[in-house]
Amino acid sequence: MSRMSRSERIGVMTKILLDQPNRIFTLNYFSELFGVAKSTVSEDVMLLRRALNTFNLGTLETVVGAAGGVKYKPQPGQNRISDFIQDLCEKLSDPERILPGGFLYMTDLLFMPNIAEQVGEIMAYKFQDTHPDFVITVETKGIPIALMTGRALNCPVVIARRDSKVTEGSVVTINYVSASSRRIQTMSLARRAVKQGQRALIVDDFMKGGGTAKGMIDLLSEFGVDIAGVGVMIATQQPEKKMVENYAALIELKQVDENGRKVVLEPADWIVEGDLY
Amino acid sequence: MSRMSRSERIGVMTKILLDQPNRIFTLNYFSELFGVAKSTVSEDVMLLRRALNTFNLGTLETVVGAAGGVKYKPQPGQNRISDFIQDLCEKLSDPERILPGGFLYMTDLLFMPNIAEQVGEIMAYKFQDTHPDFVITVETKGIPIALMTGRALNCPVVIARRDSKVTEGSVVTINYVSASSRRIQTMSLARRAVKQGQRALIVDDFMKGGGTAKGMIDLLSEFGVDIAGVGVMIATQQPEKKMVENYAALIELKQVDENGRKVVLEPADWIVEGDLY
Repeated sequence: MSRMSRSERIGVMTKILLDQPNRIFTLNYFSELFGVAKSTVSEDVMLLRRALNTFNLGTLETVVGAAGGVKYKPQPGQNRISDFIQDLCEKLSDPERILPGGFLYMTDLLFMPNIAEQVGEIMAYKFQDTHPDFVITVETKGIPIALMTGRALNCPVVIARRDSKVTEGSVVTINYVSASSRRIQTMSLARRAVKQGQRALIVDDFMKGGGTAKGMIDLLSEFGVDIAGVGVMIATQQPEKKMVENYAALIELKQVDENGRKVVLEPADWIVEGDLY
Repeated sequence: MSRMSRSERIGVMTKILLDQPNRIFTLNYFSELFGVAKSTVSEDVMLLRRALNTFNLGTLETVVGAAGGVKYKPQPGQNRISDFIQDLCEKLSDPERILPGGFLYMTDLLFMPNIAEQVGEIMAYKFQDTHPDFVITVETKGIPIALMTGRALNCPVVIARRDSKVTEGSVVTINYVSASSRRIQTMSLARRAVKQGQRALIVDDFMKGGGTAKGMIDLLSEFGVDIAGVGVMIATQQPEKKMVENYAALIELKQVDENGRKVVLEPADWIVEGDLY
């Protein structure tokens, strides 16, 4: 292979680094891949970092030491986050989404890969300094954003099941009370899925009373797992007091008026104010 | 903003194009973004394409006409696919994965974002010329690979539920017979999730008798949806005759010997032989 130009190297480097956010690649790796000196790779990294920063497309972090190298950190800029969440609120406020009982249809949006990916990157950005070992959600609708949060954090994703499945091996099951429906529900986690002492980031699509998140916290405590944080895409304004104390929501759902055909949602304060940490 | 160098433009262009595979971006878009002539953008595209091709990292396709522009097509090279699937087979053949009843524990791997993403890219590559309007799976374990297939194809993902949920609105439900367990199961799809005349790519993690895939085909026919293809990550060797005729599996599961503590899996022939279409 003839030696590549800097432009070509940077294209390839971007692909490799961005495909696996938060994974460290050594300068040696790129040096060998391209057949150039490490100092040349360093210059490539500096150029690429500057370019990404200019457009708020994330950043490259240099990690020093034996396991050192460079990694890509998604860092969606404040404007980008705020525009995206505002746009999502508009999509969600379509009265056609109102279901009987005052529920809001949002499965289609949650399962749009591009939307899930952006929500995941915002969650990852919000919680990156809590250093979770894995992301956890309970099936089903929260899975896409949990998966994309895991992708951005370079973490595995763990799923609590609604009922125990033979394909999960032995499981720990808890019953919990859904605050909103006031019904007893069940949640199971495979014994082999997590280890004592790990840290979990809980991610879900929707929080009303917080019973499900509380259920996940209780289930994880059975495994001796610590909670790094709780992030939900949408939290309802009412009840104001949730069953979990600390959580971050991207969107606040203020009202679903079934008769008046009206949905009111707003980006959370911290999204608007740019107070991302 | 001072004018960027070609290297910097290519870094940014790579990020934007690769974030949304198979989505067309006009040359004008980049021309305005960078403040350079369209001819310069064309040259950037050519350079980036050559660099990606050199490393088997996919390609850039130029689309002519009014809606024309450039798009990124994931195109994992033959060696890359074959190495990845071989490695996955090794991971899956760990006897520790054998569960009571001869089942294989694989949830952890399915929910590793990086594994799901690579499986999704292979599925997308295999089925890209079938032009599906959406990717569909039935909850739960197939969701990550379905989502990543949708991401690579720039398609929405649709989920059939095991039971009907109030958050899905009105649904169509069918009962079907699981070929392997010989039990009657239920599957529901929200009325608003799909439209008549669309084409569906069915993706799932595992096929034994093919009853679930057959169930999805029957359910979609109730909606007047055509089948673009059926792709599964793993298909069992037995029974040889499945309830669906045409499907592509990435891996063949030959044996799970619970007493002998042995799992035998192999990459599918078309993966090994490079006969990817």
